Amino acid sequence: MYKVYGDLYSGNCYKVKLLLVQLEQPFEWVDIDILKQESRTPEFLAKNPNGKIPLLEIEPETYLCESNAILYYLSEGTEFFPSDRLERAQTLQWLFFEQYSHEPNIATSRYIIRYLGAPEEYKPVLEAKRGPGYAALDVMENHLTTQDFFASDRYTIADIGLYAYTHVAHEGGFDLYSYPAINAWLARVKSQAKHVTMSAR
Amino acid sequence: MYKVYGDLYSGNCYKVKLLLVQLEQPFEWVDIDILKQESRTPEFLAKNPNGKIPLLEIEPETYLCESNAILYYLSEGTEFFPSDRLERAQTLQWLFFEQYSHEPNIATSRYIIRYLGAPEEYKPVLEAKRGPGYAALDVMENHLTTQDFFASDRYTIADIGLYAYTHVAHEGGFDLYSYPAINAWLARVKSQAKHVTMSAR
Repeated sequence: MYKVYGDLYSGNCYKVKLLLVQLEQPFEWVDIDILKQESRTPEFLAKNPNGKIPLLEIEPETYLCESNAILYYLSEGTEFFPSDRLERAQTLQWLFFEQYSHEPNIATSRYIIRYLGAPEEYKPVLEAKRGPGYAALDVMENHLTTQDFFASDRYTIADIGLYAYTHVAHEGGFDLYSYPAINAWLARVKSQAKHVTMSAR
Repeated sequence: MYKVYGDLYSGNCYKVKLLLVQLEQPFEWVDIDILKQESRTPEFLAKNPNGKIPLLEIEPETYLCESNAILYYLSEGTEFFPSDRLERAQTLQWLFFEQYSHEPNIATSRYIIRYLGAPEEYKPVLEAKRGPGYAALDVMENHLTTQDFFASDRYTIADIGLYAYTHVAHEGGFDLYSYPAINAWLARVKSQAKHVTMSAR
């Protein structure tokens, strides 16, 4: 059985849980408290030398890290990853966009506010992330104005990857009020079969 | 024929060129000068709303962006992408590592020094990127101490992805002197059949 080392309120970890539930794959969840440096212990670093969560234990001694690589691993050959060559690459294109242009701005702002509780201390950092964060949301809004999902014409791991931190963007200080296409897409993702919330155990 | 919109000295663009040459795929190269904002023109934004290079034109009106998604698209089904399921996911794991933990520190430092020529102006930014940049190199060194390549036991797009900015890390102020395994791997990558340098036309 798969084992997921994660934090319940981390969007990167939520991605993996959401997909496993929708795939009806049983898994064990191991809580890792990053604020207590539990991803930096010698035991954890032996599993993932990069010291990050989520981490998927495929079988004892076989680990995979990087949330979007885990999504790829779990979804290959299923309805959540396209069978068309170009659509497969577009799925990954959006997942790379998520990790490069979206997560470092929106998720990191949320981390400062929600996890560290230190918006004043990190004010210049938060301010520097506002522009690029909204620019990423603009790119999403632009795409969703003419399309229902990110890759292919249906729900894939590209949507799971981008949903994770977009649906809690307000916790990072990002206002989605003027993004109607994103809001409609968030509702579409939530309405997918077997959807679970971030906090679900 | 493929068309690549890129900058000759961008590592992200170099990845695509290197793979296309090694695949013996003919392609046309279109120079885009990012300092002249050529990736922000209305014409370019119509092709890639995220305004970034490289951009692959697969056929007229069909575009793919995100360098590592382009590597995936081009390498699927070839010797440069593993046939084993776990190794495929590990290849992507390293490519996501590259875009999240490596590129934003090492490539961005190089951009400030080499492109903007403004290390003094951006001194606090460069200083903030030193620790995470060296941490990424440590993760690579740790892996390469026991393995010749990143995913699988041979040269794949994971190596191409990581080679692009690692071989010019010194231009970003990163000293590779104390990374013997990385240096040996750089030499292995350079010795691959049909290898071309970054500046090759």
